[in-house]
Amino acid sequence: TCLHECLQELLCIFGTGDLGRSLGQRLIQAGYRLVYGSRRPHSCGPLPPGTQVADHEAAAQSAQLIFLCVHREHYDFLESLTPQLKGKVVVDVSNNLKRDLYPEANAEHLQRLIPGAHVVKAFNTLSAWALQNGPSDANRQVYLCGNRTEAKQAVAETATKLGFTVVDRGSLSAARELEDSPLQLFPDWRLPMRLTVGLTAFFFLYVVIRDVIYAYVEQRKDISFRIMVSLANKVFPIVSLIMLSLCYLPGIMAACLQLSRGTKYKRFPDWLDRWMLCRKQLGLVSLAFASLHVLYTLIIPIRYYVRYRLAAITISQIRENKTTAFDTTMAWRTDSYYSMGVLGFGLFLLLGISSLPSVSNILSWREFSFIQSKLGYLTLFICTFHTYLYGWDKFLHLASYKWFTPPSYMLCLIVPSAVLLLKMLLLLPCVDKRLTRIRQGWERADPEDGTRKSLLT
Amino acid sequence: TCLHECLQELLCIFGTGDLGRSLGQRLIQAGYRLVYGSRRPHSCGPLPPGTQVADHEAAAQSAQLIFLCVHREHYDFLESLTPQLKGKVVVDVSNNLKRDLYPEANAEHLQRLIPGAHVVKAFNTLSAWALQNGPSDANRQVYLCGNRTEAKQAVAETATKLGFTVVDRGSLSAARELEDSPLQLFPDWRLPMRLTVGLTAFFFLYVVIRDVIYAYVEQRKDISFRIMVSLANKVFPIVSLIMLSLCYLPGIMAACLQLSRGTKYKRFPDWLDRWMLCRKQLGLVSLAFASLHVLYTLIIPIRYYVRYRLAAITISQIRENKTTAFDTTMAWRTDSYYSMGVLGFGLFLLLGISSLPSVSNILSWREFSFIQSKLGYLTLFICTFHTYLYGWDKFLHLASYKWFTPPSYMLCLIVPSAVLLLKMLLLLPCVDKRLTRIRQGWERADPEDGTRKSLLT
Amino acid sequence: TCLHECLQELLCIFGTGDLGRSLGQRLIQAGYRLVYGSRRPHSCGPLPPGTQVADHEAAAQSAQLIFLCVHREHYDFLESLTPQLKGKVVVDVSNNLKRDLYPEANAEHLQRLIPGAHVVKAFNTLSAWALQNGPSDANRQVYLCGNRTEAKQAVAETATKLGFTVVDRGSLSAARELEDSPLQLFPDWRLPMRLTVGLTAFFFLYVVIRDVIYAYVEQRKDISFRIMVSLANKVFPIVSLIMLSLCYLPGIMAACLQLSRGTKYKRFPDWLDRWMLCRKQLGLVSLAFASLHVLYTLIIPIRYYVRYRLAAITISQIRENKTTAFDTTMAWRTDSYYSMGVLGFGLFLLLGISSLPSVSNILSWREFSFIQSKLGYLTLFICTFHTYLYGWDKFLHLASYKWFTPPSYMLCLIVPSAVLLLKMLLLLPCVDKRLTRIRQGWERADPEDGTRKSLLT
Repeated sequence: TCLHECLQELLCIFGTGDLGRSLGQRLIQAGYRLVYGSRRPHSCGPLPPGTQVADHEAAAQSAQLIFLCVHREHYDFLESLTPQLKGKVVVDVSNNLKRDLYPEANAEHLQRLIPGAHVVKAFNTLSAWALQNGPSDANRQVYLCGNRTEAKQAVAETATKLGFTVVDRGSLSAARELEDSPLQLFPDWRLPMRLTVGLTAFFFLYVVIRDVIYAYVEQRKDISFRIMVSLANKVFPIVSLIMLSLCYLPGIMAACLQLSRGTKYKRFPDWLDRWMLCRKQLGLVSLAFASLHVLYTLIIPIRYYVRYRLAAITISQIRENKTTAFDTTMAWRTDSYYSMGVLGFGLFLLLGISSLPSVSNILSWREFSFIQSKLGYLTLFICTFHTYLYGWDKFLHLASYKWFTPPSYMLCLIVPSAVLLLKMLLLLPCVDKRLTRIRQGWERADPEDGTRKSLLT
Repeated sequence: TCLHECLQELLCIFGTGDLGRSLGQRLIQAGYRLVYGSRRPHSCGPLPPGTQVADHEAAAQSAQLIFLCVHREHYDFLESLTPQLKGKVVVDVSNNLKRDLYPEANAEHLQRLIPGAHVVKAFNTLSAWALQNGPSDANRQVYLCGNRTEAKQAVAETATKLGFTVVDRGSLSAARELEDSPLQLFPDWRLPMRLTVGLTAFFFLYVVIRDVIYAYVEQRKDISFRIMVSLANKVFPIVSLIMLSLCYLPGIMAACLQLSRGTKYKRFPDWLDRWMLCRKQLGLVSLAFASLHVLYTLIIPIRYYVRYRLAAITISQIRENKTTAFDTTMAWRTDSYYSMGVLGFGLFLLLGISSLPSVSNILSWREFSFIQSKLGYLTLFICTFHTYLYGWDKFLHLASYKWFTPPSYMLCLIVPSAVLLLKMLLLLPCVDKRLTRIRQGWERADPEDGTRKSLLT
Repeated sequence: TCLHECLQELLCIFGTGDLGRSLGQRLIQAGYRLVYGSRRPHSCGPLPPGTQVADHEAAAQSAQLIFLCVHREHYDFLESLTPQLKGKVVVDVSNNLKRDLYPEANAEHLQRLIPGAHVVKAFNTLSAWALQNGPSDANRQVYLCGNRTEAKQAVAETATKLGFTVVDRGSLSAARELEDSPLQLFPDWRLPMRLTVGLTAFFFLYVVIRDVIYAYVEQRKDISFRIMVSLANKVFPIVSLIMLSLCYLPGIMAACLQLSRGTKYKRFPDWLDRWMLCRKQLGLVSLAFASLHVLYTLIIPIRYYVRYRLAAITISQIRENKTTAFDTTMAWRTDSYYSMGVLGFGLFLLLGISSLPSVSNILSWREFSFIQSKLGYLTLFICTFHTYLYGWDKFLHLASYKWFTPPSYMLCLIVPSAVLLLKMLLLLPCVDKRLTRIRQGWERADPEDGTRKSLLT
């Protein structure tokens, strides 16, 4: 029966190194028979029990499926095995130490070495730990690619039997991508991270100078302790709001570009494309900072400094025996200001949740774009409004321009205000209609078709 | 070699419109050769470079796989191509502008037009953007359906090569569903949303009248500023608790129905079925409102109004030189009230997390129902208890019945209390045993088998 | 056409019980023709309309695909059907009432009974409700296993047509696993849960004795009301921090073990393996407790007790007409203490989010281990630092050692401090280099190869 065959199926592993051993152990546990191919069949280290060792020729002969667990530098010996490898499935699990070390992907290089064999790139995205112990968190999926469907099928079945989920990434031309993926650490996050660090550093310096240093120089008061919470809680919302507006700015730029060009068939400049592609990351960083802002705000009343100040105020009121009247405007303003903050944050959380892979997968793209665009702009608007309410009429008081510098919250209002303004312009019926037509493929009639075509690619 | 074939594979696209161009660009980038079929091969707009254009006959001849990127209205010309399309795979990517525009799905209509071809419905759930630029958040999965496995396989391979994940939705009879999906915006959320809006509006009005207007009429006091936070924070928890209890009410109704009917083989009334199917949405809305309630509660102590009142109390105590004794009962009550709130919210968050697709997928249905049912009822109980503790003995004071209306929190306690009471009754051994037997398929012996059978469908 | 065949395809269900009916209804709705096989074809209960009933022989004859919806105890009658079942696909959907009830899996037992048939285990992980009404939250995926690919394919197609996603779990030897899965309730969570309950109980008792009982015995003061919030908020962070450090302790132990053994090819003791495998659960519990700690901390200022005490302090200050000077050190300390808490919690949330299945799936294992290890240790460090800041110089005051017992927070600092210390030692260049070499497969040369080999499995 097939069960019998399966359990009896003989696989071959080239290379008795660490990777070869881990994989071997796992295959044995999954009920395969296993033969190792080695240069020195008699002097290779400890191997999983129940496995044989042979020289490469014999090993290659005996099995239909061969796992190649040697470094790319040592591939050359395979050329001599061309006859034995003819028609065999060779699985390349290799990874390089750094990117672009070689002109072509290991797997493609391998395929050229042994054109007769069917090379399949697989398993290289898994950690050695996962290879030995089976699927774990970031190691559930085995990506494979190769030119022959049957070969991929054979590898896929083995991967499935080891408990992994198989994701077919198409032809061997995808090997480069697969080989790069384990080497990179959050590639899409570099630009947003740099931006975050830059903005945070700048605004932190800005508020330190305007608050701490100013107080020290002008009033000889040391309020440096405010750095830990008060100042941090000034920087976080500022960076968060700016990052959020930066998510929507590129979209607006794109629209303007299309309007001015009168067509959608011209490519955007690369910087705009790159910007567009990291909007999600920008948004998530912004959300993280917003959450910190929320937490930092909520701990205000338990702070020693705040409690002391409040008590001091009350005491002084008693001593000077005067009472301040209740200011309804103040109540209205602060309450709506907090209210806006809460609602904005709530919507922001919704955006964040809807960008979880599993959630966005069950959304139709119309639903997704509704959340990310319509709700997104609403969030931006509410958060900006929240900041305006915070500022209220401060911008009128000269006192707030210490050393002739505007308060930090004013600086952070520039970009979001601009974005919202432009968006409103784009929503004007006339503009909107034109844009829609352009996006539906309509083009302003002009004699530069040639150039447009050439720009298409 | 196969790689060679793959890269050389020639695909055909009917229609040089926007969709055709986007898809074409992507296919070219993926290494396919491409020929466009057009009515006016010599006068169609800009096309991706490296593509040929031909009339429909020639184009259809040359390729095995044909993407149909024209509107359903123009399908008729295909009948004349029956000979060229014989045995070919025709991919219908079309969408309609609104639902139920036509008696049958585009793809099924198409299959009838060209019975010789193998029609596959695919790609229509993707945005044009994703078709041109590859997978993005809500555009990872390509749903396809069709009657011939080989045809679906061919399309699936192309989709995979374009970087998408393929989800097979079975035979062509699923086409209608696929064509509807991009058109609908949160269909499952309509009922819950209406309910939410209704409840929120009602209770908001209710508290505005009882608090603001009452204070104005009776005491000539303007406390309208309390709308922003205080009143909002009364409405949110109320709606949240009611929505939560509405998640569990239908289940209880179903149980009662089964008990009274003495069988599970009778269908539930449609309204109950519909209600059952939107329980998850009800719960998520309830969670959202609960979160708002939490945030609104936590900002209380930083509110100007609260700080002013607290200071005022202290001051008056000094002035009148009297001290209020510490009330241990009060301390117990308020602390347990807050404690219950926190625990309830924590459990609620757990329910929410476990209903994330990726989380519920790794749960066995026994685990899932344990969380959603057992933990869910516990959450409901704690939250209701939390509200009772909030009310404490207020219901005894006539003063709290302004204008003879009960405080809002009393109203919101009705449904959850009823649900919990009924649930307890259903848990009584005798009732529970009976229900279990019914659910295991046991039926009360009675002479109406006939009717029951007819009710089965 | 194929559509025609599909719609006409005849399936057979053995067993007219509840499961058989549910499945039958669904299959009928999906457009299959259906024949039931029954012992008593003329006296079996209500069946879905449009289905025929026949005796087992006839039913088996007529269909290629047979669903077996009878309990394992009644499998024996199938032996007599060997001729009719030859070459047929038999789907075993059975589940047992408890684990390890039988020496071998139902499906494997079945395959032995009817070796001529192709047994496929499937659908058993779904709830009866899902079988009747189609996919729902925890019931999207149909796991199947079997020895013959074609047989599995056939079942997979049916499952797909019913709207489920199919996950192939390999050969029939996986049946045991599939049959166990619906029976177990959070198996990986047992150990962490026990630990949590134990720790929580111990520390709760500890603080109750040190605070409430101590105050009652020594000062005749009843502060039992503090149990609800104050004490709870002492226990939660303690348990959380300990659990978090317990996530990283096993990793460190493993490293030490490898260092002392000088090889990685010796297996770890079982208890260590088990511990390693529940690190994720430990972390999630810890996160939950941390969240409770955060919420309990944030409600402090709205508590009656706190407000009363603050007012009392102010009042007494007035009465005794003395003012306390502002203590900058105090401000620094408390603010940094809160700041650390917020940042630690923020990082902790990040760890939690990145361990969501859908998120960890899109991370490369290098990214995942970066977050879980590097960021994880950072979180542990910040949280421990947060606790040290909380303690500050309390450990110097004899008064804080009530009844000669250390404050609870001191106890909870032991494990995390040890973990961080050891980790720092492991990061010393010399140690780190050695460890890295060992993990790359290097082994201390010693004459015990034999033993090592034997330990490999």
